[in-house]
Amino acid sequence: MVEENTDAEIEIQELIDNHQLKAVAERFKNWAYPEIADLLVQLDKPHQILAYRALPRQRAADMFAYLEPEEQDSLLEALTDADTRTLLADLSPDDRTEMLEELPATVTRRLMQLLSPEDLAESRQLLGYPEESVGRLMTPDYIRLRAEWSVEQAIAHIRKYGRDSEIFNILYVTDGNGLLIDVVRMRTIIMSSPQVLIRDLLNYNFISISAFEDREVAVEKIQRYDVSALPVVDSEGVLVGIVTVDDIMDVAEEEATEDIQKGAGMAPLETKYSAASPVQLFRKRIGWLLILIFVNLISAGVISSYEDYVMEFITLALFMPLVIASGGNCGAQSATLMVRAIATGDVELGDWMQSVSKEILVGVLLGIAMAIIAGGVGHLYGGDAKIAVIVGLSMISIVFVANAFGALLPFVLSRIKVDPAAASTPLITSLMDVLGLIIYFSIAVVILG
Amino acid sequence: MVEENTDAEIEIQELIDNHQLKAVAERFKNWAYPEIADLLVQLDKPHQILAYRALPRQRAADMFAYLEPEEQDSLLEALTDADTRTLLADLSPDDRTEMLEELPATVTRRLMQLLSPEDLAESRQLLGYPEESVGRLMTPDYIRLRAEWSVEQAIAHIRKYGRDSEIFNILYVTDGNGLLIDVVRMRTIIMSSPQVLIRDLLNYNFISISAFEDREVAVEKIQRYDVSALPVVDSEGVLVGIVTVDDIMDVAEEEATEDIQKGAGMAPLETKYSAASPVQLFRKRIGWLLILIFVNLISAGVISSYEDYVMEFITLALFMPLVIASGGNCGAQSATLMVRAIATGDVELGDWMQSVSKEILVGVLLGIAMAIIAGGVGHLYGGDAKIAVIVGLSMISIVFVANAFGALLPFVLSRIKVDPAAASTPLITSLMDVLGLIIYFSIAVVILG
Repeated sequence: MVEENTDAEIEIQELIDNHQLKAVAERFKNWAYPEIADLLVQLDKPHQILAYRALPRQRAADMFAYLEPEEQDSLLEALTDADTRTLLADLSPDDRTEMLEELPATVTRRLMQLLSPEDLAESRQLLGYPEESVGRLMTPDYIRLRAEWSVEQAIAHIRKYGRDSEIFNILYVTDGNGLLIDVVRMRTIIMSSPQVLIRDLLNYNFISISAFEDREVAVEKIQRYDVSALPVVDSEGVLVGIVTVDDIMDVAEEEATEDIQKGAGMAPLETKYSAASPVQLFRKRIGWLLILIFVNLISAGVISSYEDYVMEFITLALFMPLVIASGGNCGAQSATLMVRAIATGDVELGDWMQSVSKEILVGVLLGIAMAIIAGGVGHLYGGDAKIAVIVGLSMISIVFVANAFGALLPFVLSRIKVDPAAASTPLITSLMDVLGLIIYFSIAVVILG
Repeated sequence: MVEENTDAEIEIQELIDNHQLKAVAERFKNWAYPEIADLLVQLDKPHQILAYRALPRQRAADMFAYLEPEEQDSLLEALTDADTRTLLADLSPDDRTEMLEELPATVTRRLMQLLSPEDLAESRQLLGYPEESVGRLMTPDYIRLRAEWSVEQAIAHIRKYGRDSEIFNILYVTDGNGLLIDVVRMRTIIMSSPQVLIRDLLNYNFISISAFEDREVAVEKIQRYDVSALPVVDSEGVLVGIVTVDDIMDVAEEEATEDIQKGAGMAPLETKYSAASPVQLFRKRIGWLLILIFVNLISAGVISSYEDYVMEFITLALFMPLVIASGGNCGAQSATLMVRAIATGDVELGDWMQSVSKEILVGVLLGIAMAIIAGGVGHLYGGDAKIAVIVGLSMISIVFVANAFGALLPFVLSRIKVDPAAASTPLITSLMDVLGLIIYFSIAVVILG
């Protein structure tokens, strides 16, 4: 696809240079939106604008929704107010909310002024929901039916109003006050006789979500119930919109990325990596790194209190990196397993005893294996049976402690309302640096006297 | 929901004890499948079987698909061959493939013998595709149309054959040889007049995927094109099945979990954490831990070669944990950022120069900040300006090197076909242990003489 695009890019540029805009539109006709968007951003500014204008109105808006925020921003700068007004009117409400949310505030203010009064009211309403809430994700473009209609009436209604709905295979049955009564599948309607009433197709067994819920809950519900859209209701149960699975997949990917970044000891980026500036990256990363410096100075304190001892038995210094790293690595493994199992709903917070017990057992197994290897190589290296015993015994104790603490920490953090994804791995790694040295030197003192 | 279930559990058990199986079925009638599945696994074995039998045939099969593999296994053990045969016939083909894949081989063999000849042929075909391929995920339950039909004929066909299809909002147009010609939306059909030909609704602009492709490619395509299902074709372009977005979301979650586990230096679990035994966990985790022991012994070698030096300036030993940890932490951050950006398609492999340059700049910023803090505290601690200078200079050099190498490593690993998610973080962390010590002691030698 990438190679194709490069050829296509040259061709489109030539067509534009020859003022053959109709041919450009014709060329794009069978392309999917992400492909057009990818090609567009490769073009230089003047060609980009002309290619964008060559697209039919609705296709231009649908393609626009696939651009990255910074690409949208750059294209918007070049568009006239008239172009922008048309674009805003043609964007679907959820794409419009996302755009207004992501663009710089000054651009958003300018855009709000170009909205039609109805679209402005709609956008204000959607932007009124808390950040990261379901309300920000939803679209009001869906098909409502009434329970008292017949299938025939419903189909006539769908044919009349269904063109712009985001979801076509699920229909929403509401009463006169907009209260959500049930959802019904298009399949059920098509399979039923024209004179059957919608009421008789309902089983009042539907899943909905509040507009104020965190968007992660929408991910969980869509994943759990395998539905392609969830109806969104306000506190009274009135249907205010729907969230669709395509938006939810994007949210799930973003949340996984955030958890991965947190696991590596940094604050989540909030934008794509490619869009983050070096200064933004610095800010997100420096926090934990500085905390870790201070924790490592505690390690320095521990070593300093055994200073004379290290002077006497300098071989002890050789294995310091090993005892520090092994505790950190093991603890990070068990903390990571636990954090992810909790995040995906595999392990419930109430099950902590079971998981921690399992990790204690795993810790014993890992500790024995690592003690044998490390003790063995310690013997070869240090040339001293006592050093080998110290390294081996430290290893088994450190790995055991790291594994148990690593497993326990995410549950404790969740309990005290600290995000376990953000804190578990860096905390257990630094804790084990200090604890590892204390265990190592304590064992050394006992054995070497 | 959880509290509700506990009450419901007691109620269901009582109904079963009083032989009121009809009441049980009635009670379940308005429940979603995941809720029934959750309740069922809470019951003891005899109640579980009776509650399962109380469900109508198709509902029992649909609910069964929501059980975890080990729960399916345990329920299957208790079912008679007749029960199992009915269940297998009622399961949808993709759920059946998944079950046969996940269950122990002995159970799978028994189940294959209970399949009807057609289902057996179908399962053999699906299981014939490589593991983790699109072929294993797909279902053959979709609606085919012919281009020469009218909308009226198409709707009649849909009403006749559409009941069991997994997807209803997208229809697949094939020729006489089964070759996929185009896809058409239910919306387009409903909106068109009955006498229009399907041919005239097509734009021949569809996205498909090969059955032999890796399932991650299906995740990317579904996410990129925002479709609810992808048609799956063989090497000739013949339509062999569809993959649906609900299965794809599960795959995306599994893949994210695998990447998170790899990032913490372990082999991916392949099962849920809750289903993994301590011995399995041990096996997945010990590999990298042992490799890290050997890397840490190189660190021991480095220290050993500066042994006399450390004896002379024992304060140097105090800051060893700091220089080791900071390089590892920084390198892990930049490697993690890069691995995830590559995995989500945010950064392309060809863009490595851009990303590595950005990370070099971030490394300079982080290095300066950390050098100031660490040097300052080093001065307070060591009480010696020279030590402070050594710690500060080491910090800036180590952080800079770690950041650049951490960013570069994922690109290099991808280039030589090693999974960057699996190797980047543990490799950079261990590499920086050794390099960090070398940099630290080299600077110390220059300054202390």
